[in-house]
Amino acid sequence: MKRTLGTCYYPEHWDEAIWAQDAARMVELGLTWVRIGEFAWSRIEPAPGTFDWGWLDRAMDVLGNAGLRVVLGTPTATPPRWVADKYPDMFALDAEGRVRGFGSRRHYCFSHEGYRAECARIVEAVAERYGAHPALAAWQTDNEYGCHDTTISYSPAAREAFQGWLRGQYPGAGNDGDIGALNRAWGNVFWSMEYDSFEQIGLPNLTVTEPNPSHALAFRRFSSDQVVSFNALQCEIIRRYSDAPISHNYMGRITDFDHFAVGEDMEIATWDSYPLGFLEDRVGASVDVQRAFSKQGDPDFQAFHHDLYRAVGKGRWWVMEQQPGPVNWAPHNPAPLPGMVRLWTWEAFAHGAEAVCYFRWRQAPFAQEQLHAGLLRPDSAEAAGMAEARSVAQELAEAPDVGGAQAPVALIFDYDADAAWAVQPQGNGADGAGLSYFALVFDFYRALRRLGLSVDIVSPETRDFAGYRLILAPGMMHMDEGLKTALSAGSAKVLVGPRGACKTFDMAIPVPLPPALPGLDAEVSYVETLRGDCPIALENGGSFVHWRDAMEGSARVLERDANGAPAVMQGGVWRYVAGWPDAEAVLRIVWDACTDAGVEVEPMPGALRRRETGSEVFWFNYAAEEVHHEGRIFGPASVTRDTL
Amino acid sequence: MKRTLGTCYYPEHWDEAIWAQDAARMVELGLTWVRIGEFAWSRIEPAPGTFDWGWLDRAMDVLGNAGLRVVLGTPTATPPRWVADKYPDMFALDAEGRVRGFGSRRHYCFSHEGYRAECARIVEAVAERYGAHPALAAWQTDNEYGCHDTTISYSPAAREAFQGWLRGQYPGAGNDGDIGALNRAWGNVFWSMEYDSFEQIGLPNLTVTEPNPSHALAFRRFSSDQVVSFNALQCEIIRRYSDAPISHNYMGRITDFDHFAVGEDMEIATWDSYPLGFLEDRVGASVDVQRAFSKQGDPDFQAFHHDLYRAVGKGRWWVMEQQPGPVNWAPHNPAPLPGMVRLWTWEAFAHGAEAVCYFRWRQAPFAQEQLHAGLLRPDSAEAAGMAEARSVAQELAEAPDVGGAQAPVALIFDYDADAAWAVQPQGNGADGAGLSYFALVFDFYRALRRLGLSVDIVSPETRDFAGYRLILAPGMMHMDEGLKTALSAGSAKVLVGPRGACKTFDMAIPVPLPPALPGLDAEVSYVETLRGDCPIALENGGSFVHWRDAMEGSARVLERDANGAPAVMQGGVWRYVAGWPDAEAVLRIVWDACTDAGVEVEPMPGALRRRETGSEVFWFNYAAEEVHHEGRIFGPASVTRDTL
Amino acid sequence: MKRTLGTCYYPEHWDEAIWAQDAARMVELGLTWVRIGEFAWSRIEPAPGTFDWGWLDRAMDVLGNAGLRVVLGTPTATPPRWVADKYPDMFALDAEGRVRGFGSRRHYCFSHEGYRAECARIVEAVAERYGAHPALAAWQTDNEYGCHDTTISYSPAAREAFQGWLRGQYPGAGNDGDIGALNRAWGNVFWSMEYDSFEQIGLPNLTVTEPNPSHALAFRRFSSDQVVSFNALQCEIIRRYSDAPISHNYMGRITDFDHFAVGEDMEIATWDSYPLGFLEDRVGASVDVQRAFSKQGDPDFQAFHHDLYRAVGKGRWWVMEQQPGPVNWAPHNPAPLPGMVRLWTWEAFAHGAEAVCYFRWRQAPFAQEQLHAGLLRPDSAEAAGMAEARSVAQELAEAPDVGGAQAPVALIFDYDADAAWAVQPQGNGADGAGLSYFALVFDFYRALRRLGLSVDIVSPETRDFAGYRLILAPGMMHMDEGLKTALSAGSAKVLVGPRGACKTFDMAIPVPLPPALPGLDAEVSYVETLRGDCPIALENGGSFVHWRDAMEGSARVLERDANGAPAVMQGGVWRYVAGWPDAEAVLRIVWDACTDAGVEVEPMPGALRRRETGSEVFWFNYAAEEVHHEGRIFGPASVTRDTL
Ligand SMILES: [Zn+2]
Ligand SMILES: [Zn+2]
Ligand SMILES: [Zn+2]
Repeated sequence: MKRTLGTCYYPEHWDEAIWAQDAARMVELGLTWVRIGEFAWSRIEPAPGTFDWGWLDRAMDVLGNAGLRVVLGTPTATPPRWVADKYPDMFALDAEGRVRGFGSRRHYCFSHEGYRAECARIVEAVAERYGAHPALAAWQTDNEYGCHDTTISYSPAAREAFQGWLRGQYPGAGNDGDIGALNRAWGNVFWSMEYDSFEQIGLPNLTVTEPNPSHALAFRRFSSDQVVSFNALQCEIIRRYSDAPISHNYMGRITDFDHFAVGEDMEIATWDSYPLGFLEDRVGASVDVQRAFSKQGDPDFQAFHHDLYRAVGKGRWWVMEQQPGPVNWAPHNPAPLPGMVRLWTWEAFAHGAEAVCYFRWRQAPFAQEQLHAGLLRPDSAEAAGMAEARSVAQELAEAPDVGGAQAPVALIFDYDADAAWAVQPQGNGADGAGLSYFALVFDFYRALRRLGLSVDIVSPETRDFAGYRLILAPGMMHMDEGLKTALSAGSAKVLVGPRGACKTFDMAIPVPLPPALPGLDAEVSYVETLRGDCPIALENGGSFVHWRDAMEGSARVLERDANGAPAVMQGGVWRYVAGWPDAEAVLRIVWDACTDAGVEVEPMPGALRRRETGSEVFWFNYAAEEVHHEGRIFGPASVTRDTL
Repeated sequence: MKRTLGTCYYPEHWDEAIWAQDAARMVELGLTWVRIGEFAWSRIEPAPGTFDWGWLDRAMDVLGNAGLRVVLGTPTATPPRWVADKYPDMFALDAEGRVRGFGSRRHYCFSHEGYRAECARIVEAVAERYGAHPALAAWQTDNEYGCHDTTISYSPAAREAFQGWLRGQYPGAGNDGDIGALNRAWGNVFWSMEYDSFEQIGLPNLTVTEPNPSHALAFRRFSSDQVVSFNALQCEIIRRYSDAPISHNYMGRITDFDHFAVGEDMEIATWDSYPLGFLEDRVGASVDVQRAFSKQGDPDFQAFHHDLYRAVGKGRWWVMEQQPGPVNWAPHNPAPLPGMVRLWTWEAFAHGAEAVCYFRWRQAPFAQEQLHAGLLRPDSAEAAGMAEARSVAQELAEAPDVGGAQAPVALIFDYDADAAWAVQPQGNGADGAGLSYFALVFDFYRALRRLGLSVDIVSPETRDFAGYRLILAPGMMHMDEGLKTALSAGSAKVLVGPRGACKTFDMAIPVPLPPALPGLDAEVSYVETLRGDCPIALENGGSFVHWRDAMEGSARVLERDANGAPAVMQGGVWRYVAGWPDAEAVLRIVWDACTDAGVEVEPMPGALRRRETGSEVFWFNYAAEEVHHEGRIFGPASVTRDTL
Repeated sequence: MKRTLGTCYYPEHWDEAIWAQDAARMVELGLTWVRIGEFAWSRIEPAPGTFDWGWLDRAMDVLGNAGLRVVLGTPTATPPRWVADKYPDMFALDAEGRVRGFGSRRHYCFSHEGYRAECARIVEAVAERYGAHPALAAWQTDNEYGCHDTTISYSPAAREAFQGWLRGQYPGAGNDGDIGALNRAWGNVFWSMEYDSFEQIGLPNLTVTEPNPSHALAFRRFSSDQVVSFNALQCEIIRRYSDAPISHNYMGRITDFDHFAVGEDMEIATWDSYPLGFLEDRVGASVDVQRAFSKQGDPDFQAFHHDLYRAVGKGRWWVMEQQPGPVNWAPHNPAPLPGMVRLWTWEAFAHGAEAVCYFRWRQAPFAQEQLHAGLLRPDSAEAAGMAEARSVAQELAEAPDVGGAQAPVALIFDYDADAAWAVQPQGNGADGAGLSYFALVFDFYRALRRLGLSVDIVSPETRDFAGYRLILAPGMMHMDEGLKTALSAGSAKVLVGPRGACKTFDMAIPVPLPPALPGLDAEVSYVETLRGDCPIALENGGSFVHWRDAMEGSARVLERDANGAPAVMQGGVWRYVAGWPDAEAVLRIVWDACTDAGVEVEPMPGALRRRETGSEVFWFNYAAEEVHHEGRIFGPASVTRDTL
């Protein structure tokens, strides 16, 4: 595989007279890809049924003639005003019942049938027009599903679609569902919540106290499925007109739809990587980490998503938008430390990216993102990120083709578990928000990175774990019997817990009590959630925070807490972690698991990180200071690449 | 009186095949009572007018035949979906105008006439069916009035009922009220808020700035009266069919309806005691107290409610729901320290409870409370609390019958004063919320407990204070002339203030200025509220926090602040505290008042607490460590009972 | 000019029998002015078209006959209930879409045509009745525009008016606007936000993510213009019947309408000065300042507004409401330190006030403000502030007539810049709210005060800066070319930045890049916003916080940051500050600018402040302790007046 670079470009934002020069500068910089079109609906179809193809035809030609390969986006994330006028009820409603209206982007409800039809029409028009264009090299559907909290809508359209979806989940005779089956599955006898028909089922918002977690989880699953089918509809249409690969640009830490399921329908997964913005608004790092990495980004957050989207893309993945300077939308928007744009780019390639595209070519002087840096300033002079992109382009030109390589460790990331934690957090974290599955998994991932390991993230649908020595599946609240069996039968060691396998598919406590894993005689007798100032010390150091599973059973106890209660138990292939370990504890627990599994570790000093591919070893120093490791010195914000 | 135990059971949640075994295990454990039915409307009346009595008949028989006595709940806290479909406007609206809909519980507005009729119908059906059943031993109306902030509704039904209620408060000729009287009473000339008719009066939410406090207070009183009449309606119906005592299970720190007024219509008051959940979500204790008592609960909060509900029940009271392990609904849900379930149970008996029932028999594996512990686990094995319940049952079996005893100190708790503080806090506490009457009274109560005293809480309607040496009435903003007279004429000393008698019934400042108490030449010239970091030091130690009354007058000054202003003044039977004393100050001020009144104190070390009845002295150590007191050692989480 | 005192009086609140005595006591106290009527609509017109003039006629006569001069308010801030019944849609809607209804005050939307007609009618009736009354000496329109966040309304009326306003901003052929011009000006091609017609334009609330800042800024400007035209309508009517000067009583830190534009239509500007309430709820001072000045008020906040409203009033200004004791509406409401009522009064006169009126004469015992102190208590005894008012009256009686004097330093305050910062804060401050223009300007103003300087605040429309040596215009995001030219051509030095001249009128980034000031070769290449814990140290001490402009260009660098980047640059008349300086840095930067401009400074110790007029020098010590300065001792909470 040849590694390549690209950028995001908006010909409709600029005088047509400078398009050719822009294209030439892109090529001169060493870019391969240019993504266009994903917000241009009002220019493609300025009035219902009236298309203006001329400008886009010329843009495709100019870019293609310059030697660039075009990724064309479907413009469905930004329906024009006239679409909204046609379907006044197409908007999502938030949990408080407020309309999320026109005036920015992503102003649609995934469940609105009228809007879906409108999307099918515009996608077909675009696909038909450009499916065979010589510059057309790939597709992008929509833009950043779920961004701005747009997966879940509490609209009437969503309610009706949810009822229909539930009929399918609890099928009965004929076209209707079996409402009794739903009532039993959800335990609706509790508090007399039983329904007589599917028409009576509402959305789980604006209830007096918390809704039934089974109800809430079903709504999360439904909402995820709506994204899947919305995207599948676009893919099916595009394929009628084009053989080019289809992708979507996912975001960071969006967990409310199943990216694996969406990714099934496409050839490539891409994501939009904004290390500084994300550190401020979603990583969830401590204040100390936020301060220390304010201009570098979290040392593990991008890597996690690279590994995640490699799995979502079934091996093929890109960074579709890479932050090249300060952004505009985070609580604080500092400039990157010199070197970081290059570092971020190489970190993506180290994790197997096919391409990294910078967002955006030229900073827009108008509208919402006018303070979002580009490779060029608004006056077309070079911005600071440009030189670093140029460096990478030159380095890539001299680098060999590369292939992939399996990591020794797999981490299961389960979107459904994230939903389960969200609907039943059973307590708050330090910030008052409910305990988060993502945060738990990321703590384990960070420990693996601190041990110098390369990691494959895998889907919970995985059944073939050949080649892995250790599998981590922390916090996976429901475990399919097929998965339990596959893991039990494998040769890898498996780390699970806390809350391991603690729920049925319908969000009830199973009897016999969890985790009920073959070969592990251990059960969770009760659980407790902990105040931030009441951690439970572990005898070997560190603590359990937030959560504890109180264990019984005859399985071997590997660690105990200071009260003598089991903290880690072992049996069969399984290692059950009976609480949420803090940073000290998680490092030791993962290290021990590695040792037991025969996985060699190389603990990293400071913010140095390591990633090994089949042919290269990369070292990334995220710190603003140099770091020493095994006789070598790694400069601040530096990339070191050893060829094997 | 024989002290007894019980539990809360939901036959409709379990296979009928295990009912008999459950009943037998309850009896074996030593339980007397089993509460059932309070959420079972959808099973009793699955469709409008279609009743399914079979299962409940059998459940009553099985439980009764095992020797248990049944407390039967009316199911009106959980109307089924079909009721909500019949009355789509039956829901409460919150202060922001959002519907609080179906999907959990307590989804009704107390003012909705259609829902009231529906309640009357189901209550009559249940009362008629089981009023004479041999197992039926007591009734419970509805469940936890006010829980989940459900007393106050801003619905159209509430508005119309409020207007009618106001006509009664300001009666005029014929059926209409005297709108001029209301305008004068409220001072509506201010800001041209005068009404021409009662139809114009809205609810005091969604105003541009704060509403008239007279308006807001009237709405609070109305909302309280709606609970009273809703409950009275159920009692009146039940009494037609049954002689068994009627109770309601109140909650902790619900202050927005007058429990004394609701209690007037019933024989027994009960409450639901969740010491760990409450410490996290409503006690209002400092972070230090929350951390230290995370697994024990606040040392005084349960005692306060025991004393309060003894008064509400006119001497007869129970704990209807006692936490037996971790709960599911608080911000953090730790497990109790070993010994605490026993301690909590005995503390209730020490305050005169007739019965303590554990919530619930078996942990439900489904729906909202699936992580709420029971005496049994979901797999029917014994949970941790079971053994402690068994200990108490055995101790009770050997304990004598007991009677009541009057305490030397009375504390007036005035729900109307709580409303007055809420509508006119005149400043914020450290948490940004308005200053709270409950918090003030609880500070005084805690001081009494720290002095080793037993306390009687009494209603503001009390006029006969015979037997008390000292009466505390802190923060009582309006004092009826009858009460002033009764107290002045009594032999007990009376502590009042801050904000003592500072308002007329209609929430205006009286002239002559307050407190205007017979025999006390003192008046409040102005008031001030204080930043948390600007306490006013007192010359004898401690400070006034939050609030200060600036005093004038010739009454004797017992204490001054560091600026020389009066802090405590005395005259006649009265002792006026001119500010909100911090923990150090309140202990001294109460101690001095005790000394003056001839009440002997016994200061408690640490979290040791003492309660004296006519025949026993109890010692409760809420600490996780042992404590020494007068040559004795009290173990952690221990109960010590001395028979007099 | 003779300096005078007054008070605010509500004859409708009191028994007519005491009016004469009240008036006599006012005169005895030494008051000149009495403001009445501004909330009395329901008494003037109790029913539609039915006027009750009798009581107001008598009140005017009683007050006038006592020798007082009446300021008569139009009652439009408090429409009676019957007005609201006539126009059920007259209320403002908040940004969440909730109606801000009847029950307090300011319950109207400025854009509602029906309510405007109603206002015109009542204003005309009052003006006609009293325009020639001998006691009538001045008018006040409405009351505290913008108070309680009432400038901006998201109502349907506002939407329709906004569309009309936009047609005027982007005029086209005939009566319609040019929607293409608007689309181009706003950059609506971004995210396909293009409109086909003005009818499609909504208000910038409830969008999925942030709205276009051009859209948001236009709505802010529109909302401001609505206040201007609402007020102008009243002035135009009053002038038909009266020659008396017209005023409005503005509030503290209301920045969402252009007070200069409103002030253009009136003879006098007044404001309502509540130093203790404002310190708690809007100054934005540090917790240390809030604690230290809890009973004195911020040492600079009142002065700032005195200087601001002197400009708004084109030289003529009053304090219409002066806090005389504790208020009722702030988060904490302490009593002023003895001496502060006198100090606040004299500070106003030191800044050129013609009159200071105390709010209010007698404390109201009823309704919303019953805990707001007056000069009299509710029982008509003297409250604490009365004696201090009497002192000032006596001092004034002995003081000479005074004139005005130009200060050496001018500070431009630009309401439009405040709107621009609000719609594009590009990051949060420590409190999580967006960065605030007012806060930035106030930091510079405070530095000028700490340097002992008197300051003139001037409008951004100013073109003649004769007489000033130094002009400060920090944070002025858009600078009109006329202003740039006038300043460049003047003899004064000018300090600008950060964000200086960084936007076009329509809120886009100009090319060439900003600030593009004649004579200053410097441009902002990019900007960054900073975490609170990531300040950028300056080489001369102090730091940039919140904001940094990354500068390029050949202009002289006066200061650098610790990374060597330019912090202050100079060229022509200009001095560009490339970041938000903290307290240490702003003092030095302003001091240096003063030195350069030949402005002599006299640094103040502690909370001592100095104000020089043409004939007097005043010293105000805001501290609770005495302070030493140049051999003199200034007592706590003291005023010292030196006659020149
Ligand atoms: Zn993006
Ligand atoms: Zn309960
Ligand atoms: Zn005012």
